[in-house]
Amino acid sequence: MSHLKQTHYAPLTEAVAIELALSLNFFTENAVLSCKEIGDGNLNLVFHIVDEQGSKGLIIKQALPYAKVVGESWPLTLKRAKIEADALKTFGQLAPDYVPTIYFTDDVLAVTVMEDLSHLLIARTGFINGETYPLISKHLGEYLAKTLFYTSDYGLGPSAKKEQVQMFINPELCKITEDLIFTDPYFDADTNYFEDGLLSDVEALWQDDELRFQVNLLKRSFLTEAEVLLHGDLHTGSVFASNSETKVIDPEFAFYGPAGFDIGQVFANLLFQVIVNTKNQERFVHHIETVWNVFKDEFTHLWNTENKEILAKTDKFLSYTLAKFFEDSLGFAGCELIRRTIGLAHVTDLDSIEDEKTRLAAKRKTLELGKILIKQRKEIINCAAFISKVKEVL
Amino acid sequence: MSHLKQTHYAPLTEAVAIELALSLNFFTENAVLSCKEIGDGNLNLVFHIVDEQGSKGLIIKQALPYAKVVGESWPLTLKRAKIEADALKTFGQLAPDYVPTIYFTDDVLAVTVMEDLSHLLIARTGFINGETYPLISKHLGEYLAKTLFYTSDYGLGPSAKKEQVQMFINPELCKITEDLIFTDPYFDADTNYFEDGLLSDVEALWQDDELRFQVNLLKRSFLTEAEVLLHGDLHTGSVFASNSETKVIDPEFAFYGPAGFDIGQVFANLLFQVIVNTKNQERFVHHIETVWNVFKDEFTHLWNTENKEILAKTDKFLSYTLAKFFEDSLGFAGCELIRRTIGLAHVTDLDSIEDEKTRLAAKRKTLELGKILIKQRKEIINCAAFISKVKEVL
Repeated sequence: MSHLKQTHYAPLTEAVAIELALSLNFFTENAVLSCKEIGDGNLNLVFHIVDEQGSKGLIIKQALPYAKVVGESWPLTLKRAKIEADALKTFGQLAPDYVPTIYFTDDVLAVTVMEDLSHLLIARTGFINGETYPLISKHLGEYLAKTLFYTSDYGLGPSAKKEQVQMFINPELCKITEDLIFTDPYFDADTNYFEDGLLSDVEALWQDDELRFQVNLLKRSFLTEAEVLLHGDLHTGSVFASNSETKVIDPEFAFYGPAGFDIGQVFANLLFQVIVNTKNQERFVHHIETVWNVFKDEFTHLWNTENKEILAKTDKFLSYTLAKFFEDSLGFAGCELIRRTIGLAHVTDLDSIEDEKTRLAAKRKTLELGKILIKQRKEIINCAAFISKVKEVL
Repeated sequence: MSHLKQTHYAPLTEAVAIELALSLNFFTENAVLSCKEIGDGNLNLVFHIVDEQGSKGLIIKQALPYAKVVGESWPLTLKRAKIEADALKTFGQLAPDYVPTIYFTDDVLAVTVMEDLSHLLIARTGFINGETYPLISKHLGEYLAKTLFYTSDYGLGPSAKKEQVQMFINPELCKITEDLIFTDPYFDADTNYFEDGLLSDVEALWQDDELRFQVNLLKRSFLTEAEVLLHGDLHTGSVFASNSETKVIDPEFAFYGPAGFDIGQVFANLLFQVIVNTKNQERFVHHIETVWNVFKDEFTHLWNTENKEILAKTDKFLSYTLAKFFEDSLGFAGCELIRRTIGLAHVTDLDSIEDEKTRLAAKRKTLELGKILIKQRKEIINCAAFISKVKEVL
């Protein structure tokens, strides 16, 4: 297949996907390959290709020129495949243990060919099924420290960083976040989606002026603070895991934004388990503490040893930076808790609770905790204070 | 002249500049034109072309591929001519009264052809010569409100703004600011330049850890906060003025940064006159108050009438935004006061004071005021408090 000569986009068929796989010299020349499209069809085609013996496999991901969410379809740029591929390459260089290997990309076809991770499970699904993933929080802490430090002005230098900012300008995908996380949940927008039992809670939230002000500040940070290259969608559905491995996938929302956004998404999506997984609360509290502590230690180490800003390498400025990241993380975590409860895109952690009373009680807790984290984030000055706030709500 | 077919850069001669001027149909076909190169030769060639009757004229500005400062020469991208031309066009659409009209631009030649402003004087020179420019502060307040509001997420909308951010990524010129304003003055860097009589003051400044921390925060804001399209070098040497007109020129440092940077540069460069022009202090204090008050009123008006962020249009978020801009402005003004006193690029306001004792006293005041504005910017909560701090130092 002349994959390098593609001049126009067309969705791949399974046969063409196999042809592409063979052309990459990843399998032996005469390998007999089987192919299965395993994507959910909402945003991307995902082909899983394995050889006859099942000993080798790879994934071909192709962006579709539209997004489908709850029946609606709207056009979406194919450029996001390039952003995703570039982000995977960047993050892969900085934290190779935690990012799938990329074998090939084609901007015209909007295709990325990458490591087969089918021996791992999506972490959200795993957690819901009772998996413990004892190393996932250590791995995510390291991933966050490396990707957020090395893409910052302090890790990369201001000039190289500006070129990265330019490369990762991502208006369309950012708009999804701006609308669905920072805007729509805070008024009676068509995109919101919540069960009738929550109506009075949601109406109270819409009338909370202090909450709206604080969300304006967080959205302002998301819109203006180009601190680091973010994954941009780092929930537990973007993480593949086993008891020994962790791989962060799907960075199509990548752009330069506030470091606390990625950390906050991780916090919030672990908090869903703290809230719903009542028998194993401490396990997930411990995961949250580990994410932050490993992040903090590794970021501190990188700040002190790899800092390119000569005058910035002081303990006081490092403390300020970590405190800002932590405060921002709490606020963004609060926004994620709220939008996953009443906004367009929900989480299975909550929606799969069968008993209505239990489910509504859990959702009231995510709303309550979300509001507290957003409004009190300046007062919650460390991880211990954060965990006690969480326990107050439980 | 086939100016549209230029495929490579070459510095213009006066003859070629005339040819270019004739090709633009600005003058009559048979006009006899005279041309004079009036640039300082450090960064750009500037040709002033007038017709025989002296009734019509224009300016051709061409970037040189290097910068010369105090004898040193280093290469500098010609792309800055495109950034400058794009910024002039953008600012010209938003605040046409205060920006020269652009007639023609050529990215290959790094040329911008613009309105002849030779009936005006550079404001710094005018002020030093005793001009009052009664309208300059009202005009600058309006210019700042319009350019800073309409280029923000709130005036432009987040998606269009991101495209502007991408278009105005400006690593080389930003690096000059990052080094000369935020870094070099705070340690014994080769680029610093100050008279012997200031040595002990400068050494004290280098040992001031709290000052260094606060400057780290301001530099961090400059590096990461993409709030608005800044002029980026808005001192009184970038403003042409008369008693009735004000035109802001030379935005080659334009990029997306914190709004307070432009406002702070204006504050600081008026403060030099407050400090040195002892007979007319109140005039310049009044100019500073007018810049801020006009800016605040016009920005408030635009925020309430033209805001594209539906949930952001609240009094509380507007107050927060103005307070942030003001606080940042004071900090950046402090940095400008310090770097113009001991850094590479000085101001004539200070250096032209002939009497050594008077000059040193004035420079000690700019250093002192600079430190106060940087360290106390959070406590100086309004313009009245700002002016009393200034008067305390005087």
